[in-house]
Amino acid sequence: MVQHVLSVEQFSRSYLFELFHRADAFSALPRHEFTDTARGAIMATLFYEPSTRTRLSFEAAMTRLGGAVISAEYAAATSSAAKGESIEDTARVVAGYADLIVIRHPEAGSVARAAAVVDVPVINAGDGTNEHPTQALIDLYTIWREHGRIDGLTIALVGDLRYGRAARSLARLLTRTLDTTLYLVAPLVTRMDPALVQHLRQSGLRVFEVDDLAAIAPELDVLYQTRIQRERFRDPDEYAAAFGQIIVDQALMEQLASHAIVLHPLPRVGEIEPTVDSDPRAAYFRQARNGVALRMALIEHVLARRPLSAARANGYHD
Amino acid sequence: MVQHVLSVEQFSRSYLFELFHRADAFSALPRHEFTDTARGAIMATLFYEPSTRTRLSFEAAMTRLGGAVISAEYAAATSSAAKGESIEDTARVVAGYADLIVIRHPEAGSVARAAAVVDVPVINAGDGTNEHPTQALIDLYTIWREHGRIDGLTIALVGDLRYGRAARSLARLLTRTLDTTLYLVAPLVTRMDPALVQHLRQSGLRVFEVDDLAAIAPELDVLYQTRIQRERFRDPDEYAAAFGQIIVDQALMEQLASHAIVLHPLPRVGEIEPTVDSDPRAAYFRQARNGVALRMALIEHVLARRPLSAARANGYHD
Amino acid sequence: MVQHVLSVEQFSRSYLFELFHRADAFSALPRHEFTDTARGAIMATLFYEPSTRTRLSFEAAMTRLGGAVISAEYAAATSSAAKGESIEDTARVVAGYADLIVIRHPEAGSVARAAAVVDVPVINAGDGTNEHPTQALIDLYTIWREHGRIDGLTIALVGDLRYGRAARSLARLLTRTLDTTLYLVAPLVTRMDPALVQHLRQSGLRVFEVDDLAAIAPELDVLYQTRIQRERFRDPDEYAAAFGQIIVDQALMEQLASHAIVLHPLPRVGEIEPTVDSDPRAAYFRQARNGVALRMALIEHVLARRPLSAARANGYHD
Repeated sequence: MVQHVLSVEQFSRSYLFELFHRADAFSALPRHEFTDTARGAIMATLFYEPSTRTRLSFEAAMTRLGGAVISAEYAAATSSAAKGESIEDTARVVAGYADLIVIRHPEAGSVARAAAVVDVPVINAGDGTNEHPTQALIDLYTIWREHGRIDGLTIALVGDLRYGRAARSLARLLTRTLDTTLYLVAPLVTRMDPALVQHLRQSGLRVFEVDDLAAIAPELDVLYQTRIQRERFRDPDEYAAAFGQIIVDQALMEQLASHAIVLHPLPRVGEIEPTVDSDPRAAYFRQARNGVALRMALIEHVLARRPLSAARANGYHD
Repeated sequence: MVQHVLSVEQFSRSYLFELFHRADAFSALPRHEFTDTARGAIMATLFYEPSTRTRLSFEAAMTRLGGAVISAEYAAATSSAAKGESIEDTARVVAGYADLIVIRHPEAGSVARAAAVVDVPVINAGDGTNEHPTQALIDLYTIWREHGRIDGLTIALVGDLRYGRAARSLARLLTRTLDTTLYLVAPLVTRMDPALVQHLRQSGLRVFEVDDLAAIAPELDVLYQTRIQRERFRDPDEYAAAFGQIIVDQALMEQLASHAIVLHPLPRVGEIEPTVDSDPRAAYFRQARNGVALRMALIEHVLARRPLSAARANGYHD
Repeated sequence: MVQHVLSVEQFSRSYLFELFHRADAFSALPRHEFTDTARGAIMATLFYEPSTRTRLSFEAAMTRLGGAVISAEYAAATSSAAKGESIEDTARVVAGYADLIVIRHPEAGSVARAAAVVDVPVINAGDGTNEHPTQALIDLYTIWREHGRIDGLTIALVGDLRYGRAARSLARLLTRTLDTTLYLVAPLVTRMDPALVQHLRQSGLRVFEVDDLAAIAPELDVLYQTRIQRERFRDPDEYAAAFGQIIVDQALMEQLASHAIVLHPLPRVGEIEPTVDSDPRAAYFRQARNGVALRMALIEHVLARRPLSAARANGYHD
């Protein structure tokens, strides 16, 4: 059966641990040592929305696995979508060329629609305001690497919790953790959807919506800052009301515990001051770097290039 | 002598058969087995018009042959053409980097101009409203695979026969077949150029221009539907008059013989209803998939990586 | 220590000779023979300005060295820069994916800012009106190949000497040569910055600013023509005043010595007439071709894939 990666909802706790250990094995490889894992396989990347980070991270991961890449960097302008082709048709055609398709698309649900019609694995690299499951995996993997565990932590999600798919995918993924306290800190116009908040609570998270980041900062193990995404707002006044409200600066860093870490899915446009970068608790560039190893582990899995272990066979809902 | 691929006119009947058999050999390879055919060669793709399908198909073919690819996906915006460079100069420069150049360009004749000045093979991946020779090869190869022969068939070309280079290149290529009946079914504003119709007749095809697709459907072995291409019309009223006139839907499928096949060069934007996709006679996604194997055979040939057989040496006019 | 390539100022005379000899060794390889030099390394190309030539030349070089490439062809539209990310942040992230980063950017100094924050080599592929060091290396390498030496030559730089980074980088690099006479021939509005002219003179070049190219043509060993770059002018009247003033045509070629060569960094838009192309002294397409070998030598060096020789260890200021 083909295993797509569409939503964080499909990952079990045991699958996560197996994936993280495998990513660690890839991280430990000498930098110039590629593997043979994906030898003879072609990955197609179809990006209908701007991205450097995610596309190049996937392509580096596939390259380090010994696989090949064909790429549509600017599919919105250069692909048949510009001629009115449906994402389903595009996917069906590209499935004839490639063994794995990675898609970013502005429309929520579009990647799942593509996956439904093809016989090769499809990975969702972000579908509109909906999900960004590989980013959430990287975020939780980074927490696991930095803190040595994913349970018993106090985590704040900060910024755009309404449109931001990375923060929302991470929140959903945190329901796989135990004994977690989750603070939601957002400007009024980018508060998290109440239905999602309720879902998180019902899934066992202790969730608190707060206004004052500084007040809770000393309690945090993880501060997850996000960008207010101008491209998601229809109303410029709403964007203006949200932008620049919550900044991570030196003053805030002084409130954080010495063992805390600051994450950000990047890019940032001012919501973390550059002076913070040299603080060892600023983990966001390490987080970006972790993306390659995590995606190597994920690609290896969906290409079915390793015998499934019992843990994975049971742990991955699909 | 360098062998370019510029027009279907250059292919002899014997060359076609040799190419199709070679494509079949590539099709039969296990999916993850690349060859060494193009090891040490670099293919440059220069696309001045939008395309996912054609570019990625060429790049997958080159990859499966063990070759390397350098790519200009959005050359209209990112290449020196934006600074006013001629296609000849661009080709001359890129010929210093690559062993094979694949070009799509909006201007008829531009690819031949590029080919005239370089010492590496150039493949025309579509030049304006002129030709799309590799698509025609894929189309005829698909007919050959599906029907086991290319002779004695009744074929309808439907839709945009005026601007559509794929349908027109296929029509020209059909002059290499024997005992073929060709129906042309087009809205008034996208009828095939009478000079081309006359050429087809003089070349031995039985050509009939008809208005009612349903009436001839029962006779068909191949129904080749095409998209009305908005980007080729200068007059929006003409586009409106052509668009949506001839649709392949369930009712039409009921008129088709059980052994008939439906082809389309893709992308489609409504001229074949998605409900038709699950019909086994809907061969257009198989057709797209055939593109990789056919292009592998073609690239192998123009790179001169195999000793020429007698058939090929005699059969390829250049 | 990481060795970036940011400016021609960093190259010593002895380093140039070592680089040119190494490029010659790569040039002498059979066309289809790739090396293992960069095996296991990934090069990222980030192009924020249009380019076919430079990007594909770098990618061909890396491919021929056995390395892998990940590419952002249209980073201005598709990268996080479109979301407001700084070049420093982008570079830090991409340094987690790649072993070498090649950047073209419209802003002078931007590539150096990127290089300052990362731990992998960064190569400047053109930063606004500032520098284009690899082009200058290719230009001087071509002079060395064509004339057998870089000293005792009479060279004219023609065209846009004010905004043109290629001509200005070459002029700076010529300060590493001995006994050189340099003519500067430019329309009034694209004269070279007087401070740079003074710097060249203080560095030992004999510099003359002249108006009449034909008058000095018989003395020249090298005529280096450049394009008047429309995209650098804020004032269209200035562009109009500069464009088309100095053309290399058959009449001018008759003034040139039989051993002289004509160079151009390309693209051209009329400043060298196409009729000149067939003249053996027209060396600009050979110059473009030399780019691959020269960049192979440079990439090999910055990746530190060869033991440093004494000459190189001493000769490369960084």
